[in-house]
Amino acid sequence: MSNPTAAMLVIGDEILSGRTRDANMHYLAQEFTKHGIDLREVRIVSDDASAIVAAVRALSAGFDHVVTSGGIGPTHDDITAPCVADAFGVAITVRDDARTILQAHYDRQGTELNEARLRMARIPDGATLIENPVSAAPGFSLENVHVMAGVPSVFQAMVSSVLPGLTGGQPLLSQTLRIERGEGDIAGPLSDLATRFDDLSIGSYPYQRNGVYGANVVIRGTDGGRIDDAMTALSALFPEAVAS
Amino acid sequence: MSNPTAAMLVIGDEILSGRTRDANMHYLAQEFTKHGIDLREVRIVSDDASAIVAAVRALSAGFDHVVTSGGIGPTHDDITAPCVADAFGVAITVRDDARTILQAHYDRQGTELNEARLRMARIPDGATLIENPVSAAPGFSLENVHVMAGVPSVFQAMVSSVLPGLTGGQPLLSQTLRIERGEGDIAGPLSDLATRFDDLSIGSYPYQRNGVYGANVVIRGTDGGRIDDAMTALSALFPEAVAS
Repeated sequence: MSNPTAAMLVIGDEILSGRTRDANMHYLAQEFTKHGIDLREVRIVSDDASAIVAAVRALSAGFDHVVTSGGIGPTHDDITAPCVADAFGVAITVRDDARTILQAHYDRQGTELNEARLRMARIPDGATLIENPVSAAPGFSLENVHVMAGVPSVFQAMVSSVLPGLTGGQPLLSQTLRIERGEGDIAGPLSDLATRFDDLSIGSYPYQRNGVYGANVVIRGTDGGRIDDAMTALSALFPEAVAS
Repeated sequence: MSNPTAAMLVIGDEILSGRTRDANMHYLAQEFTKHGIDLREVRIVSDDASAIVAAVRALSAGFDHVVTSGGIGPTHDDITAPCVADAFGVAITVRDDARTILQAHYDRQGTELNEARLRMARIPDGATLIENPVSAAPGFSLENVHVMAGVPSVFQAMVSSVLPGLTGGQPLLSQTLRIERGEGDIAGPLSDLATRFDDLSIGSYPYQRNGVYGANVVIRGTDGGRIDDAMTALSALFPEAVAS
């Protein structure tokens, strides 16, 4: 596949401790798929500076686009912005354009732009701001890394701001066939099909429901006609199966 | 903190494409927290051999325990077992003990142990089997890497088999205070509190509900008395807040 590649870095103690479930990953995965960007890896790390810096460097070097989520608020545990600056070896300071955005927002609310809130105007040198229509405090893009908030409504708005500017590819299409047989029964024919349609990705995802074994077979690719052909061939092998 | 560390590796094209949400990560995070094991990193990679091998090596070297999820079934896209063998430079063959388990299971079902199903008896040299009381096909442990199935019911059963044998630590305890103020208003006092209780982890997780900004402040640690003290101090700062 020649689509651009991407990775996501989630900064989230609260996910690693099992307190909350991540929602942003699932959202980003769906948006990238529609946009023809191939999400290849997700890493979740804790609020630990060395872990964040190492992950930013590795993912930035390994993939075309990187999106981070979390750790850009005003509290002491929000350390993503300085870590990203550190990863690229650039300085980070309170920047006038970001300060102006925050000042206007808090003026409208009649709230003080205090020292803690001003932390959210710290932007690494050379970064461009990402608009935040929900709560003003901007994200930023530095090189191929796009730094976004963790609050889902803000994250989603920032993805909408950034996505149109990213180089995309052909949207990834998929069709699914639900086959009520154990994977061991379908594995042989499925392997032959995967060899015949080696330009497509054919995945088998087993399930067990009320004691019945089955598998959802998902055929993915960028050419809808080829996917149709593979689905036709697959359905002929398993006539009782249901497209879903 | 001196608790042992852990990482999780999820092998899952279906999660990266946005087709499904991962459930195993959340389950494992909660079990590790109860058991006093500090889950520090999660990686999700696609069904790509070089990505799996690289991740197994990196996580095995970086953490005390590693759990993998997914990719050990009978179909062509199940490549986790040979990748883990490759990561440790050992051979992988159909092993008699695993074959015996599968043979007995399929004999009871009156199902043939065909070539595809026999793939699930391929175990790397030197690994010990992980029992699968749900669908028989075993997982395995090699060095500090525990290779488990992706189907949630099987994954959970395998975690139950392995967890008692892992070196744990003191369970991580937490208390949460919900404060209906913008994070910018609580950040200053919270930072002072975090400095005073530097043996605890104090995290702030903002939310927005019906246009009202607030934050859940979570205090974590292994000493319940210290967490009580920190909660008392925090509640005194924000008397209107609600423990949750």
